[in-house]
Amino acid sequence: MASTTDDKPAPEPEKVAPPPEAAAPPMECAPRDHSVVADVVLRLLLFACSVVAVVVMVTSKQTEVVGRLPVAPFSPVFKPAKFNHSPAFIYFVAALSVAGLYSLITTVVSFLALLKPGYSTKLIPHFVIFDVLVLGIVASATGTAGGVAYIGLKGNSHVMWNKVCNVYDKFCQHIAASVGVSLVASIVLVLLVFLSVYSLSKKIPK
Amino acid sequence: MASTTDDKPAPEPEKVAPPPEAAAPPMECAPRDHSVVADVVLRLLLFACSVVAVVVMVTSKQTEVVGRLPVAPFSPVFKPAKFNHSPAFIYFVAALSVAGLYSLITTVVSFLALLKPGYSTKLIPHFVIFDVLVLGIVASATGTAGGVAYIGLKGNSHVMWNKVCNVYDKFCQHIAASVGVSLVASIVLVLLVFLSVYSLSKKIPK
Repeated sequence: MASTTDDKPAPEPEKVAPPPEAAAPPMECAPRDHSVVADVVLRLLLFACSVVAVVVMVTSKQTEVVGRLPVAPFSPVFKPAKFNHSPAFIYFVAALSVAGLYSLITTVVSFLALLKPGYSTKLIPHFVIFDVLVLGIVASATGTAGGVAYIGLKGNSHVMWNKVCNVYDKFCQHIAASVGVSLVASIVLVLLVFLSVYSLSKKIPK
Repeated sequence: MASTTDDKPAPEPEKVAPPPEAAAPPMECAPRDHSVVADVVLRLLLFACSVVAVVVMVTSKQTEVVGRLPVAPFSPVFKPAKFNHSPAFIYFVAALSVAGLYSLITTVVSFLALLKPGYSTKLIPHFVIFDVLVLGIVASATGTAGGVAYIGLKGNSHVMWNKVCNVYDKFCQHIAASVGVSLVASIVLVLLVFLSVYSLSKKIPK
């Protein structure tokens, strides 16, 4: 660089050297596009997780024999277990439905940003804000459903809450699968925030 | 700027004009410092919330008479309610302790960033990543404890889980206060992420 201080016109051809530097921005652009692609893929995954969690939770109904009538026909007494018997599971379904709807909308928006390069810069801060809000909702719903499901699995002898999973085995399998999938949804939301922050911090001049 | 192409020494004083432009960065710097101050204050608030939530939860022990001996002295039977009778509340204490320790460390780091202006640019992306992780932990712990506390408050007639808050009133008040404070901690974490993203997006050239 010190040689450029010479007063000869020779440095002019050296000024032509920048083409490799000018070629650099496309190289910088490529990973940015990759990150938008990853964003779309993660949002689709979040949508899939939300839908699966809601469907598995809602279809968890199981009817079992819990005893027999004490009088003549001694016919068996059936009792169903449904997700809407617990407010925790209702909250879970509501929260994951919100996450599913949100992921659907943001997938479309993120896909449109993929078609218009440069548009994502304005979009990312908004995405982070809403992603973090939805993460809070999904994480708390996962915790709520998981906490109640754990009591159903193990019971709590201190307050005489008996376990129910020994009777309603399929119901509990549905609940466990649904909570597991929503945990994956939480992790996907965390990854989405990481990706957005990575894209933002790359755009800050050093 | 076109006048600077003149070959007289007069343009030299014009070069002195930039000071207003050079003065602009401190004007840009001022809100950045404000956001770092807000960051430190929010982290202190997060620390206070975490400590209060843990202390209120841990000190929730209450012993009540739950019956009397069926034989001669008919002495009352005492039974304590403690937070560690429920795995959900143990998880809650663990999660809020982690959040408290994290907020203490990041308050110190953020305060040091306040003393060294310009250092925060490198720091913010890391802060966002860890804030989001801690938010996930605190939100899920709040959900877990809240879900179990709700069963204690209302019971669940479908699975014959009886309510306990009619007996252990002070215990339940402690749990409710603790869950409420941890909800505030979750909101503070969301605000911290918002603040960081705002600071990051301000540093991106238009």
